[in-house]
Amino acid sequence: MKRVMLVVAYEGTAYRGWQIQPGHVTIESVLNEALSALLKEKIAVIGASRTDSGVHSQGNVAVFDTCARMPADKISYALNQRLPEDIVVQRSCQVADNFHPRKCRSVKTYEYRILNRAFPMPTLRRDTYFYYRPLDVERMRQAAERLEGQHDFTSFCSIHTQAKDMVRKLYECQVSADEAAVPDGQIVTIRVTGNGFLYNMVRIIAGTLIQVGNGELAPERVGEILLEKNREAAGPTAPAQGLTMMGIRFEEDIYSPNTAL
Amino acid sequence: MKRVMLVVAYEGTAYRGWQIQPGHVTIESVLNEALSALLKEKIAVIGASRTDSGVHSQGNVAVFDTCARMPADKISYALNQRLPEDIVVQRSCQVADNFHPRKCRSVKTYEYRILNRAFPMPTLRRDTYFYYRPLDVERMRQAAERLEGQHDFTSFCSIHTQAKDMVRKLYECQVSADEAAVPDGQIVTIRVTGNGFLYNMVRIIAGTLIQVGNGELAPERVGEILLEKNREAAGPTAPAQGLTMMGIRFEEDIYSPNTAL
Repeated sequence: MKRVMLVVAYEGTAYRGWQIQPGHVTIESVLNEALSALLKEKIAVIGASRTDSGVHSQGNVAVFDTCARMPADKISYALNQRLPEDIVVQRSCQVADNFHPRKCRSVKTYEYRILNRAFPMPTLRRDTYFYYRPLDVERMRQAAERLEGQHDFTSFCSIHTQAKDMVRKLYECQVSADEAAVPDGQIVTIRVTGNGFLYNMVRIIAGTLIQVGNGELAPERVGEILLEKNREAAGPTAPAQGLTMMGIRFEEDIYSPNTAL
Repeated sequence: MKRVMLVVAYEGTAYRGWQIQPGHVTIESVLNEALSALLKEKIAVIGASRTDSGVHSQGNVAVFDTCARMPADKISYALNQRLPEDIVVQRSCQVADNFHPRKCRSVKTYEYRILNRAFPMPTLRRDTYFYYRPLDVERMRQAAERLEGQHDFTSFCSIHTQAKDMVRKLYECQVSADEAAVPDGQIVTIRVTGNGFLYNMVRIIAGTLIQVGNGELAPERVGEILLEKNREAAGPTAPAQGLTMMGIRFEEDIYSPNTAL
């Protein structure tokens, strides 16, 4: 038996999110089916980030156990042959038998992308959120700075959470603008790196920073919203299609001594 | 009667190119149907760039004549309500009654985008060409330089052309690499601006520059290929999905004295 880690990229548009749900097609269910068919045993992956319906990934992580003799680093190639074109495994390798991607300390990065111009751009419609009111990126930056560091993020968490501890640490919350990407407008990217994220946290941060960018909220207001510890104080949850799980760095040694990398 | 110009963006994936073809859905046929329904008269647009099946646009141009009283600059908003989400009109305005987007002198810009890394990235699959062998961008730049200026582009034109005069002028042929866009790889963009393009010209330039980038062709070879005036001397026609029509600048005054801008 060995434990294998996959780095998984996907376009979330066609899926009901990561997690298995009866009657729906999810990233997890598609991976389980393809792996089970490939390795000829029942496989159940454990995902690091259980992304919502419509959210994308460049580098989500999953692990599973297998008795199959196929070398761990060859599984990515064989698996991609069986996966639809909107899910592509980027890498596979063996990890320590006790490595669990949600119980291990890790640093995750997400990006929220906003297409900010008068008209939508068809090729960008699936992985950006189209927002036509002008956004002042400098204001958004001033607000984003206030979210960096360790805070109680209750105000930036869905009320449907099951989490008890609402304290998380953001290593970066940066706002950048790319004006070359589209004519007469910009793509505004909110990049957030932290040691953990609450339910809908990045999308609520995005929804709040958009209200700062359009002038509805003062940048300083974001510090007060944190202190209020009240979901209603923050802005709306921005739509799923703007969000991409960029990647995960694990802070402990996740590789077993016999791992072939 | 007035003549109206549209700037049209689209994702070409679902279409058999621009031009009307019996039994196929094309950008032109969808525009004609939506405009005819909106303006309640039979409309037939004239396109500036008749892009191939699967090619995208950020700024193709079309004109049509109408007797409808709707102000020209309002047509874009009303028309977008009737168009599918993969075609979005970016702007509409009145132009001179004799303006013809293919007979007027113009400068067009195209971009060909290559995803160059070991594995495909799902969100980029429709508008980049995935190419896994490493590309040396510096070599590609040296080759691209040789295509700038006025040349006979017979070697870079499909043999199915109906053009007689094969001389075109390229104002720029630039190769850039974005390594921040994807992990462990790059997006290589070939940007070409010219006073006219032959059939498949940008895709053959891309296919040839890829052969330079992967080491198959020396950069100096591209100058010889031009002189040979033989399609077989150049590289293959790169796939359509990497190509985007970026925009068109008309060199003459296309606006009528009574144009409301």
